[in-house]
Amino acid sequence: MNCALLIIGDELLAGRTRDLNGHWLATYLPTVGLKLKQIKIINDNENEIKSSITELFNNVDIIITSGGLGPTKDDITKNILAAHFQKELIFDDSSIELIKKLYAKFDKEWTPSKNAYHYYPRDFELLDNLNGYAPGLLYNSGEKTILSAPGVPREFKSMVENTFVPRLKEIYSSDHFKVTTLFSIRTKGVPEEVIFGELCPTLWDDLSKIAKVSSLPHLLGIDIVLYFNLENEEETISKAKSIIEASALKDYVWQYGNLELEELIVKEATDKKITIGFAESCTGGLTSSKITNISGSSSVFYGSIVSYANSVKTNILKVKSSTLENFGAVSEECAKEMAFGAREALECDIAISYTGIAGPGGGTPTKPVGTVGIGWATKNENSSTMVYHKGDRIGLKERFSRSGLFKLLELIRGH
Amino acid sequence: MNCALLIIGDELLAGRTRDLNGHWLATYLPTVGLKLKQIKIINDNENEIKSSITELFNNVDIIITSGGLGPTKDDITKNILAAHFQKELIFDDSSIELIKKLYAKFDKEWTPSKNAYHYYPRDFELLDNLNGYAPGLLYNSGEKTILSAPGVPREFKSMVENTFVPRLKEIYSSDHFKVTTLFSIRTKGVPEEVIFGELCPTLWDDLSKIAKVSSLPHLLGIDIVLYFNLENEEETISKAKSIIEASALKDYVWQYGNLELEELIVKEATDKKITIGFAESCTGGLTSSKITNISGSSSVFYGSIVSYANSVKTNILKVKSSTLENFGAVSEECAKEMAFGAREALECDIAISYTGIAGPGGGTPTKPVGTVGIGWATKNENSSTMVYHKGDRIGLKERFSRSGLFKLLELIRGH
Repeated sequence: MNCALLIIGDELLAGRTRDLNGHWLATYLPTVGLKLKQIKIINDNENEIKSSITELFNNVDIIITSGGLGPTKDDITKNILAAHFQKELIFDDSSIELIKKLYAKFDKEWTPSKNAYHYYPRDFELLDNLNGYAPGLLYNSGEKTILSAPGVPREFKSMVENTFVPRLKEIYSSDHFKVTTLFSIRTKGVPEEVIFGELCPTLWDDLSKIAKVSSLPHLLGIDIVLYFNLENEEETISKAKSIIEASALKDYVWQYGNLELEELIVKEATDKKITIGFAESCTGGLTSSKITNISGSSSVFYGSIVSYANSVKTNILKVKSSTLENFGAVSEECAKEMAFGAREALECDIAISYTGIAGPGGGTPTKPVGTVGIGWATKNENSSTMVYHKGDRIGLKERFSRSGLFKLLELIRGH
Repeated sequence: MNCALLIIGDELLAGRTRDLNGHWLATYLPTVGLKLKQIKIINDNENEIKSSITELFNNVDIIITSGGLGPTKDDITKNILAAHFQKELIFDDSSIELIKKLYAKFDKEWTPSKNAYHYYPRDFELLDNLNGYAPGLLYNSGEKTILSAPGVPREFKSMVENTFVPRLKEIYSSDHFKVTTLFSIRTKGVPEEVIFGELCPTLWDDLSKIAKVSSLPHLLGIDIVLYFNLENEEETISKAKSIIEASALKDYVWQYGNLELEELIVKEATDKKITIGFAESCTGGLTSSKITNISGSSSVFYGSIVSYANSVKTNILKVKSSTLENFGAVSEECAKEMAFGAREALECDIAISYTGIAGPGGGTPTKPVGTVGIGWATKNENSSTMVYHKGDRIGLKERFSRSGLFKLLELIRGH
């Protein structure tokens, strides 16, 4: 079954806020056998909402809307749905009960003077909201269904998972739900056009015989992603691996699978009981934050020294003042000492260090913005290298961070 | 002039990658006097691309497309534009020269065997790409213009800024460009419906007389955002401030202006020459990374200790073992000692500490997931408090981090 997401909100098109629901829904729907065919972001505008509903229902079976259900005057979704489907707004005992229940879970009392949450368009269903006050809406007209959730991501997610999908499975028969999945061949060190041009000219066609193929430039690498039905999973993955292992691309693959780099690092470090830590200067804590986003990271990640000031490098990481004087903070020598000092201070098995120039200021002709020293220290090894990237400040932090994480993965694998 | 963004890519709707161009474009276009009216994300599908172009041109003057210009077989944008506008694909000396130039800037040589980048639909313009190999496209048919850029954010951004907007200013007269701006009244500690219900029932209408009003729930607060023409900026802001200062909302405002919390902290700390640092346990470096995203943060941010393991808390932050034994790592006592230890180790003026449970595991009946101890240390003060939030791991890290940053802002202001 095909779905569309209609996101309603001036603030998204004025750049005031970033939509988070679209990406989440795109990852979630395939896991329950639904397909997201379109995402459309429009203003809080009656005509646009109405014409978008008409247009989207020409292409999909199910429309999910996000936003415009709150208590303020620009929250117009409910009224416009009522007008569009020519239903009057009503309330009844059960709708009042639901709203009272929504408030009671936060130990709050609701009265009709607060808002119009108890009103709903006739023939619609008013739906529970596990994480908020505003109820959702559902309307099924024969083959098509429209569902409305608040735009707040926590409320949107829980409403889709806990209310929308169970109700859709009651409305439509189970053969409408076909779970698709994906499998990634994640590479680094070789550009997209070299992969499909010089290196493996038949690869795209070979893979297309077993799955739908997509090629995705990723930070510092290319992912080749295969999409297929869940029931063919084992066979498709096995065939894909054979194709790659027989090709010149195999040396550039760092993962067969869908894990993020930091997830993979936490997994492999956990399996090998290796503890890790960082000394972060230019990356400013980004790498540590990425690692600690992973549940279970506490069993391998001991901590980090974010050493923005040189005094932190000398006091805590024991970088020699002479190193800073002779080579500067952005140097192979400093990166090496930072990694050594971090491993000592944090008492972990492997430490990775970063010291570079994320810009926009601070660059010099010999050390331009984008220069980073990456160091590493293990029981047997203490070394470093200089790496050069392009990008703005945020982009460079990401690239720096990822370069060091690739080195960490290599060290964990060689440990 | 009204614009729409058409984002083309299976990977975005399959949840494999997240669009970053939409939000950026939404922030950028108003600054050059253009208005983003819709964003639509669709598959790499000929019929969908064609029907979306027709549909969007019914609503807007300018369509910008993102994606599908690369070298692989699913990069179909150029061919479909040619088909849609019934133009044959051609190449000529100048298109070959452009592609050679695009490669030469990366010290690479281009030959026609590499790809079909030199082809373009007749009557289109092939456009420079400052940050990549694939050229952009422009086609103007009387009143309407379509522009195509690669989906890679670095390439998309630089092409819009450096090529699309200058060309649009040549095509359309200057009175089509009207710069709008926005002004935020950023509050915390009071829910949206209380603001517009009990606290200030006439506020929405009062503000609507001077600007278009929007109310945006933000992490731990509500932003009231006003949109208006740049030429009325001074007058509108001054009126808005008077309205708020005369209302009961004034005590909840933490900023009149559009800065992110971390930008504001760096600015106010810089103005007062106050140096800062953090001890981050459950936030894992997130707070430090947010601060170091701000250019110029190096003049106030000394560094952080990310103390995930208890050994790091005792060894570097000098938290007493007896504190950990008697009260646990997630406690007021530990938070207080962490902040003190961080201030000593980092030698900064103000240190903020975090120790909490981001989940999903690790919660107990007395300290559930979402519990965080936030500590602070200044020359005169060393204290802490327990705070409770709801959310998943990533959401909790964000809420924890922001709670501490609000405390830091308060301390900087009182310094």
